[in-house]
Amino acid sequence: MSQAERLHEECGVFAIYDPDGEVARSAYYGLYALQHRGQESCGIAVCKNKDISHYKGMGLVNEVFNDDLLESLDGTMALGHVRYATQGESKMENAQPLVIRYVKGNIAVAHNGCLVNSETLLQELTKGGSIFQTSTDIEAFAYTIAKERLTTPSIERAVEESIKHLYGAYALVVMSAQKIIACRDPWGLKPLCIGKRGKAVIIASETCALDSVGAEYVRDVRPGEVVVVKDGEITSIDTYVNSRPTSLCIFEYLYFARPDSVIEQQMVHESRKLAGAYLSEEHPVDADVVIGVPDSGISAAMGYAEKSGIPYGLGFIKNKYIGRTFIQPLQSMRENSVRIKLNVLKSTVEGKRVVMVDDSIVRGTTSKRIVSLLRKAGAKEVHVRSSAPPFLWPCYFGTDVPSRDQLVMVGRTNEEVCELIGADSLGFLSVEALAKIAPKANCGFCTGCFTGKYPLDIEEDSKKS
Amino acid sequence: MSQAERLHEECGVFAIYDPDGEVARSAYYGLYALQHRGQESCGIAVCKNKDISHYKGMGLVNEVFNDDLLESLDGTMALGHVRYATQGESKMENAQPLVIRYVKGNIAVAHNGCLVNSETLLQELTKGGSIFQTSTDIEAFAYTIAKERLTTPSIERAVEESIKHLYGAYALVVMSAQKIIACRDPWGLKPLCIGKRGKAVIIASETCALDSVGAEYVRDVRPGEVVVVKDGEITSIDTYVNSRPTSLCIFEYLYFARPDSVIEQQMVHESRKLAGAYLSEEHPVDADVVIGVPDSGISAAMGYAEKSGIPYGLGFIKNKYIGRTFIQPLQSMRENSVRIKLNVLKSTVEGKRVVMVDDSIVRGTTSKRIVSLLRKAGAKEVHVRSSAPPFLWPCYFGTDVPSRDQLVMVGRTNEEVCELIGADSLGFLSVEALAKIAPKANCGFCTGCFTGKYPLDIEEDSKKS
Amino acid sequence: MSQAERLHEECGVFAIYDPDGEVARSAYYGLYALQHRGQESCGIAVCKNKDISHYKGMGLVNEVFNDDLLESLDGTMALGHVRYATQGESKMENAQPLVIRYVKGNIAVAHNGCLVNSETLLQELTKGGSIFQTSTDIEAFAYTIAKERLTTPSIERAVEESIKHLYGAYALVVMSAQKIIACRDPWGLKPLCIGKRGKAVIIASETCALDSVGAEYVRDVRPGEVVVVKDGEITSIDTYVNSRPTSLCIFEYLYFARPDSVIEQQMVHESRKLAGAYLSEEHPVDADVVIGVPDSGISAAMGYAEKSGIPYGLGFIKNKYIGRTFIQPLQSMRENSVRIKLNVLKSTVEGKRVVMVDDSIVRGTTSKRIVSLLRKAGAKEVHVRSSAPPFLWPCYFGTDVPSRDQLVMVGRTNEEVCELIGADSLGFLSVEALAKIAPKANCGFCTGCFTGKYPLDIEEDSKKS
Amino acid sequence: MSQAERLHEECGVFAIYDPDGEVARSAYYGLYALQHRGQESCGIAVCKNKDISHYKGMGLVNEVFNDDLLESLDGTMALGHVRYATQGESKMENAQPLVIRYVKGNIAVAHNGCLVNSETLLQELTKGGSIFQTSTDIEAFAYTIAKERLTTPSIERAVEESIKHLYGAYALVVMSAQKIIACRDPWGLKPLCIGKRGKAVIIASETCALDSVGAEYVRDVRPGEVVVVKDGEITSIDTYVNSRPTSLCIFEYLYFARPDSVIEQQMVHESRKLAGAYLSEEHPVDADVVIGVPDSGISAAMGYAEKSGIPYGLGFIKNKYIGRTFIQPLQSMRENSVRIKLNVLKSTVEGKRVVMVDDSIVRGTTSKRIVSLLRKAGAKEVHVRSSAPPFLWPCYFGTDVPSRDQLVMVGRTNEEVCELIGADSLGFLSVEALAKIAPKANCGFCTGCFTGKYPLDIEEDSKKS
Repeated sequence: MSQAERLHEECGVFAIYDPDGEVARSAYYGLYALQHRGQESCGIAVCKNKDISHYKGMGLVNEVFNDDLLESLDGTMALGHVRYATQGESKMENAQPLVIRYVKGNIAVAHNGCLVNSETLLQELTKGGSIFQTSTDIEAFAYTIAKERLTTPSIERAVEESIKHLYGAYALVVMSAQKIIACRDPWGLKPLCIGKRGKAVIIASETCALDSVGAEYVRDVRPGEVVVVKDGEITSIDTYVNSRPTSLCIFEYLYFARPDSVIEQQMVHESRKLAGAYLSEEHPVDADVVIGVPDSGISAAMGYAEKSGIPYGLGFIKNKYIGRTFIQPLQSMRENSVRIKLNVLKSTVEGKRVVMVDDSIVRGTTSKRIVSLLRKAGAKEVHVRSSAPPFLWPCYFGTDVPSRDQLVMVGRTNEEVCELIGADSLGFLSVEALAKIAPKANCGFCTGCFTGKYPLDIEEDSKKS
Repeated sequence: MSQAERLHEECGVFAIYDPDGEVARSAYYGLYALQHRGQESCGIAVCKNKDISHYKGMGLVNEVFNDDLLESLDGTMALGHVRYATQGESKMENAQPLVIRYVKGNIAVAHNGCLVNSETLLQELTKGGSIFQTSTDIEAFAYTIAKERLTTPSIERAVEESIKHLYGAYALVVMSAQKIIACRDPWGLKPLCIGKRGKAVIIASETCALDSVGAEYVRDVRPGEVVVVKDGEITSIDTYVNSRPTSLCIFEYLYFARPDSVIEQQMVHESRKLAGAYLSEEHPVDADVVIGVPDSGISAAMGYAEKSGIPYGLGFIKNKYIGRTFIQPLQSMRENSVRIKLNVLKSTVEGKRVVMVDDSIVRGTTSKRIVSLLRKAGAKEVHVRSSAPPFLWPCYFGTDVPSRDQLVMVGRTNEEVCELIGADSLGFLSVEALAKIAPKANCGFCTGCFTGKYPLDIEEDSKKS
Repeated sequence: MSQAERLHEECGVFAIYDPDGEVARSAYYGLYALQHRGQESCGIAVCKNKDISHYKGMGLVNEVFNDDLLESLDGTMALGHVRYATQGESKMENAQPLVIRYVKGNIAVAHNGCLVNSETLLQELTKGGSIFQTSTDIEAFAYTIAKERLTTPSIERAVEESIKHLYGAYALVVMSAQKIIACRDPWGLKPLCIGKRGKAVIIASETCALDSVGAEYVRDVRPGEVVVVKDGEITSIDTYVNSRPTSLCIFEYLYFARPDSVIEQQMVHESRKLAGAYLSEEHPVDADVVIGVPDSGISAAMGYAEKSGIPYGLGFIKNKYIGRTFIQPLQSMRENSVRIKLNVLKSTVEGKRVVMVDDSIVRGTTSKRIVSLLRKAGAKEVHVRSSAPPFLWPCYFGTDVPSRDQLVMVGRTNEEVCELIGADSLGFLSVEALAKIAPKANCGFCTGCFTGKYPLDIEEDSKKS
Repeated sequence: MSQAERLHEECGVFAIYDPDGEVARSAYYGLYALQHRGQESCGIAVCKNKDISHYKGMGLVNEVFNDDLLESLDGTMALGHVRYATQGESKMENAQPLVIRYVKGNIAVAHNGCLVNSETLLQELTKGGSIFQTSTDIEAFAYTIAKERLTTPSIERAVEESIKHLYGAYALVVMSAQKIIACRDPWGLKPLCIGKRGKAVIIASETCALDSVGAEYVRDVRPGEVVVVKDGEITSIDTYVNSRPTSLCIFEYLYFARPDSVIEQQMVHESRKLAGAYLSEEHPVDADVVIGVPDSGISAAMGYAEKSGIPYGLGFIKNKYIGRTFIQPLQSMRENSVRIKLNVLKSTVEGKRVVMVDDSIVRGTTSKRIVSLLRKAGAKEVHVRSSAPPFLWPCYFGTDVPSRDQLVMVGRTNEEVCELIGADSLGFLSVEALAKIAPKANCGFCTGCFTGKYPLDIEEDSKKS
């Protein structure tokens, strides 16, 4: 549990207040809609008559929970979480929400994000006698709030005060005996939204979770805002709001979020179509068909096709029976490894000049295999287009970008990578265009992984790990 | 295990001869590609030095098998199977392949299909002292072959002779100590194809399974043909070939098969696009966008859009984390039940006149819910189009069509159903058009579920069950 | 599934007719009491309104069944089974009861025992077109009954006629739509008893299963008898009764059966005490304490102590948390492997001359390790006594005796084995004494594994396998 | 996780230093031997090159761990734990060892016992900003040590200082990057011993765990002593040793510990025999046979028999296939519920005057059922003897004694209880005799549950919970 083990992660949170009960069931459907944000572990805590109980487990929401469990998690408030982590850290201890006893009783806490000053915080806290049982940031959140609670009149004020100490990207939700408190970091790096369904109030990482429980999208939690839900009333503490320009992770639009989600007024699918449209302007090509690499390349491909006038075609069928336990092919069959999950629709590409749109190109190996499959299926030309700019820098806020020596565009020219992946041409969306792909969103963006420029200073410790 | 329990099922088979071994692993990937044909149970039998061993289990291929199991299933021939069955019959006993000891040693048998004379066969066999341990047809196949083997010089001749007794739809594969024997019923109701990869020979329900193991599609097994694979040589017995007009199940093109599969030279995706194109000709409408209901309505929607000139749009996002154990919403949330798995992309349909293409309309309840979702998302008009004609009759060959009183189009006019599902207009592909959706296939089709006309007489017993 | 795979096994059967229902629950407790007879797999079939349903699984009774399953297995008759098998044959297919459809509908069959003419039967049956799906004898029973049923007026008559063809050791129970039929082989090699509880009638391998469901022991099924239970009435067919001298497996008393069971009027614990008493007469020794090797050496040790006047002591504590998945020690720790499951009570043996009574000595390796443990614990002398005579011959009736080259007493003198296991003296109960250990039982015994003399001729095929 | 949830528990700890490695495997066997002290959850932490990794799970040692896991837990030090808890608290979070990051890196902590000042400690700690994630005392231990470590030069000194704050019963083991530290509370309420095997040093709750790994018993950890194991060297800090009279829980001898364990020089089996002997002196009776209720009544029954001269007999057979998932009988069968797990050996008791010795009588219901079983089996008289005095008071140190209103002897005379359980006579061992049952142990005992006199003051908070 050294600092090196502390992981960057992408997660999903969902909280609900509903006087009519069935809150665990709502959380179940909400987390199911957010499953793409984390498949490693999940958990639901509920509050009934000021008493908090919870259940967590490794695996998908529909693997971990069953009817009996949901039945037993009775109450009028719930807080749920889905978690992603790289293989080595796949530990039950790290599952959220974290349910703790602190000075005022019990609370449950869950977050999506990554602190950049976590090592400093940990050292400070351990010097005061604190102990840490997980290898995630959530304990740093819990301790900070617990300490602030000693000198503040309420849990929401404790959360407000904690913002000063918590340096990084986060969407945080706390459930106490009587309230749900939601909070985004002042840069607004991670999304978090508010919904309503009758008397019920919902907090969720994405609006697709609101849709899944039949709730209406009200608004996003503002960067730096502390939202308090008590007995169905929504109030707000805005001490830390608007103090700086905001920086929503642009990769939420390009890759993370579900296409049907709306973030800061901007629907993700439309944003991806726009990325595809700008891509077609920046990197036009004379071709017969535009295809998208499933799943997240599809929207951009449709935008590219629409803008360029080249017909959109169904290029691939993806095997939908995905499972953690799928056995990888032996080395001798490795060439076919992509084909097992992704088969080319020969009739779409045979004898054609093909534009293949993907959401991004990271290591280049998958692109190379897909290009090869297209050629074997008879494509005359394969023009690869990435709706994200080249990955060149690390992310310190939760995106699990590989180290720079594994990024195919680091230290290579566009031509070299084009040759390496076997394409006839290769084009990336420009960083400039990124500013235009979410026109309805009135916020700024973090493009650190493409530009190396981050909205906040990164501690040396974080840089090392 | 009364006759009433005997089920109609849709299944997938995969067999391979490969002198280089690793046959269980190939079968694993082949079955994974065929997983859409059956998710209840699966099994793989292998033959090594004339010795047959096997493993079967309930669940998906990647749930049942692991590396150790595949390692232990060593040999140069394999026979695999995935099975679908309705809830009540979810029994381990019914998993295939069936491995039996008969007069000449051991064989493994597996099939896709449904006999219409199974009750007659069973009564005959039990009158001779036979016993039945499963509630599937596979034992009728096994017994018939075992009896014929007593008076024939080889296993392939026994299979050939069995065709006389086996009345119905089937794609059958037998693995003996030295051979793989593949056979389709003389009407050609169920698909089965042959592939090659170097010295290896593969038999599979669909070509997508050939693709997944890197094999080339050679040809389909002909209706009534018995194909023998021995030491890599493919020979054929054609006694029962061509004796009657063929009748491939048209629903393979419309729904069952994977879009990337080729059946009788015709790619399924193109066939569905053609169905959509004819649908647009037969039921045109003035609209702003064409959307498809995932997964199998997508191809037809693209065809409808292309032919009509109305833009194709992404109408829905389907949650991909599907699992057998997913908990259904309570009655109070039932209205939202579709939304949990299928969310509308508001930006695609808001304020628009929408053509919604689905692969078929069976009970009408799902269509009603989806239409309602589209309206809530702001669609001005919703025009429902089904790329299959109305279901009006039972299927006796393995498709699990509900009873007539549950079929929404039985006893109702088009207008009544249109109103019932809340659409602005409703159109079904005509039975006549079905004849044109697979132009490359030089075979006839069974359209019994739409027309009530079947390629072979149905026994009274089958009608009752 | 070659003949070589066909296994000798020891199993337990339990059947109940109870008009008040809850029969699956009764079967559950009955099988739990018989669990020592088979831990590999178990199953329960129930009959409700002439309809038979069932559930089987790998593992212990309390692992395979849960409340929901028992609830779903509703009816007024049940047939249950627990099965033992050596590792290689641990297959779901072999679990019993076997539920089959035959000429008159459905029946369930289960047995304990082993046919010696199974290979002959199989060859005959396959020559008639039969197929076999398991590697156990139960299908031979089922086929034979099914064939006889064609020419007999009832299922019980079919069972009666089957006795002519079924050559070997068996306790067989059949459940039809209306009856339970129980039958023992004419030599009476395997035990089977009848009990009553109010209106309920129970058939079980041992009386401990009657006790566990609160039933009274009525009598044993007689060798060759066919007992019919219909609507609570017990009738009997005795065509094959008393035609030959009976030969109950003596090892049931010495080892297999539970000490609290009564077989042929003789309580097993008392029989073991008698064996111990005769052992003390045949092999007296001057000693300070008599200890028994748990579990089945305890009773004999108490008998030895009582007869000899030497105090009985608790010599060992056996770890009771047994599980199939227990990890065996590495080679380097192998010396301690016995100690992990069996620890010596130092205070009982330290500085003493110890008589260590075990139920039998097979390979000698375990005895050697236990003697070594006793010496390390400070025993001055260790006198080993076996309450069974030396194993010298194979068993063809279901006991899994190792091959002769593994039997420590084959080809060695008593002195040689005594030295090999490190004992101060070694004594086995004589074959002659066996005749006296069950004085209340008025039946003869099979002592084939000690004498090589069997009550029936063994086919050459059985000898080979 | 209110105070009310905090549980009294009985647990087992095992730690090993072994330069030759395989420490997880040794811990596995050690915990297996200690399994009777806790079946709910278990865990093993290992230290390799100063790095600590661990694995925990719900269930028995042989259910939670497998070969791969043990292989992956590589190192030269290990700390293992088995835990017992009442049903409601069966949570993964409570499993031990607890692995934490604190000011000096990582440590693992595990304990057996119960603090009586835990609520006070918790309130103090939370007032300082601490948070608690479990509902066990182990976090109070961890925090206290972590805080003391801030002002002490070493982990062992931090443990030493912690003793001042930790008020209650405990056997505590800490594993740091370089050392194993073991410590018993100054009253010596919980047992803990030291063993050696070559260069390896072992710490364990009972000596049976030393035996299971082939280690020699060196001595017990002294009450109040802090034992430090570093690089195989054993050193000791005795600041808190001998400051008060010691008070080992007498119930370790009577019930908890395994009969083959030696605590404070006294073998448990001999102690129980002595208890039985004194019981026979205090409550003699004219009878024909003495039987013990398995498992822990056996030793005392043997002592009673030996002393009284009445023959010892095997009275019961206990079903050994115990499992957590065993289904309880329905109310209608409840009368037989004891019989399912415990069957009477009729031949032992029929027509006899029986002395039935049990380890204790708590609620009386089980005794009543067993007496009834004995009478049904034909016992002429049943004289019940308890080798423990009557339970009259709560235990604050980890024994899960029911509340006073459930204790059968509270508020009833001996005669009343005798009648209630249906016995002919009833006798309990006297509190006075307890002092004599462990003559080799030179320590005092806690008999609080019998006398209401405890070796340390109990806080009001503990009394309430």
